[in-house]
Amino acid sequence: MSREPLSEYRGTRRVQFYETDAAGIVHFSWYFRYMEEAEHALWRAVGLSVVQQGSGIGWPRVAASFDYHQPLRFEEEFEVWLRVLAIGTKTIRFGCLLTRGETRIATGGLTIACVTHRPDEPLKAIPIPPDVASRFQVASGVDL
Amino acid sequence: MSREPLSEYRGTRRVQFYETDAAGIVHFSWYFRYMEEAEHALWRAVGLSVVQQGSGIGWPRVAASFDYHQPLRFEEEFEVWLRVLAIGTKTIRFGCLLTRGETRIATGGLTIACVTHRPDEPLKAIPIPPDVASRFQVASGVDL
Amino acid sequence: MSREPLSEYRGTRRVQFYETDAAGIVHFSWYFRYMEEAEHALWRAVGLSVVQQGSGIGWPRVAASFDYHQPLRFEEEFEVWLRVLAIGTKTIRFGCLLTRGETRIATGGLTIACVTHRPDEPLKAIPIPPDVASRFQVASGVDL
Amino acid sequence: MSREPLSEYRGTRRVQFYETDAAGIVHFSWYFRYMEEAEHALWRAVGLSVVQQGSGIGWPRVAASFDYHQPLRFEEEFEVWLRVLAIGTKTIRFGCLLTRGETRIATGGLTIACVTHRPDEPLKAIPIPPDVASRFQVASGVDL
Repeated sequence: MSREPLSEYRGTRRVQFYETDAAGIVHFSWYFRYMEEAEHALWRAVGLSVVQQGSGIGWPRVAASFDYHQPLRFEEEFEVWLRVLAIGTKTIRFGCLLTRGETRIATGGLTIACVTHRPDEPLKAIPIPPDVASRFQVASGVDL
Repeated sequence: MSREPLSEYRGTRRVQFYETDAAGIVHFSWYFRYMEEAEHALWRAVGLSVVQQGSGIGWPRVAASFDYHQPLRFEEEFEVWLRVLAIGTKTIRFGCLLTRGETRIATGGLTIACVTHRPDEPLKAIPIPPDVASRFQVASGVDL
Repeated sequence: MSREPLSEYRGTRRVQFYETDAAGIVHFSWYFRYMEEAEHALWRAVGLSVVQQGSGIGWPRVAASFDYHQPLRFEEEFEVWLRVLAIGTKTIRFGCLLTRGETRIATGGLTIACVTHRPDEPLKAIPIPPDVASRFQVASGVDL
Repeated sequence: MSREPLSEYRGTRRVQFYETDAAGIVHFSWYFRYMEEAEHALWRAVGLSVVQQGSGIGWPRVAASFDYHQPLRFEEEFEVWLRVLAIGTKTIRFGCLLTRGETRIATGGLTIACVTHRPDEPLKAIPIPPDVASRFQVASGVDL
């Protein structure tokens, strides 16, 4: 069965209380988890999981960043838009935009690498298997 | 080499910003992590680790509770006192008291079980190995 | 406008990667957050929020517990069922059941108190305002 | 009383179990919390707190990033080295290096802004008060 490769994932999320901090806003570390939730949802949307038990392959993060524009507060609903920006031999790079209605909340980036992942061995980058790489495609058009 | 069994662990901890919530106090879920930190420190103090790689044995939590008396706030220092309350055939039960100076902050309980822990198999409770059980002893005296 | 009081909330949730630990299962502290998510959703379902800005009233947790029956793993979907077990003068007590299909995952309890909540003042328990208490009712029938 | 301005903070930290994920390594979101712990410790070391109650001033994060070189595992001890890279009119920029012995674990960046922080008002960047800016100085010498 053929399946169309995907270049993006869009989801909606509500701020949970445990994600806020004493400044009354979402703690900045949570944005990285929002971005990863979207990435893992994209894996599911292409028919895979980021965790392939028994495959000996893993997908550690090699770079992650966010620029914060506006805060998020308890119970607010916001949108997470994740796009594939580049597919390299051993890495995939995503861009992420968080918005609340018309308000730009934050802009993020995430690079993951394909590695061998065996107990008690160091992680080693390897080429992305073709049947994985073919599920994703680079997003075109509007810049994040 | 013989080693004295231990019945308790006492540690000091400072509240980190990411542990607070929008009510300006430590989120209640964090107390369970404070309690577990103390338990894992007790394992180290008896010369072991709660994670014994390759042993096929794990120590999942089977019950956990806290009663909350007073809040904790950002940057406050507090004490965590963990005591062994009971050592059963397959489980160990701990009691935990958090204090800030003379103020009782919270009182907790934690029960862990000894299980076989193999990939893709259900967890199964087994008797605690004697060389583990002998490292701990039930605390006597003052009640938590 | 009158509104029917509610006695329970049921929701579905998927395990996120950051909720798992090195044992390959959801860390036990997360169950308390799952339970609180359901409680806050119940507040919304009755037309309120657990956070009432400017009211001077807050709802800290005074007791929380879980018994763990079976583990949860990455990407599994599970159900959270929260029920009102008791409404006291100053406290509300909930029971919580987590299931994955027919499998009982965990059983929890949560007691929250109504307090005055002003900056730099100690929290003080007060009677639950009638227009809040009237939104909830004690669940009847099947025990959790 | 005069106090020497500081340009860096060095601390040691042990990996806690709840910081690990199902890949058996520290979840990437935790590095941002390690970096922030060091930043807040630097504030304390210069005689201040990042939270100045009643001041109406706050320090939200405006940018944060990490490059990940090697994983961290449960119970490993590692070093966090935070340095002041730039002090602007309204922002302070830090660089962060995590190491475990001779092994470079990760390299991070963090930019914080000085803002007015009042309930129910948008955050607004303002010049850093001189008595705060004078406590910090830009680190010289070896690059992170």
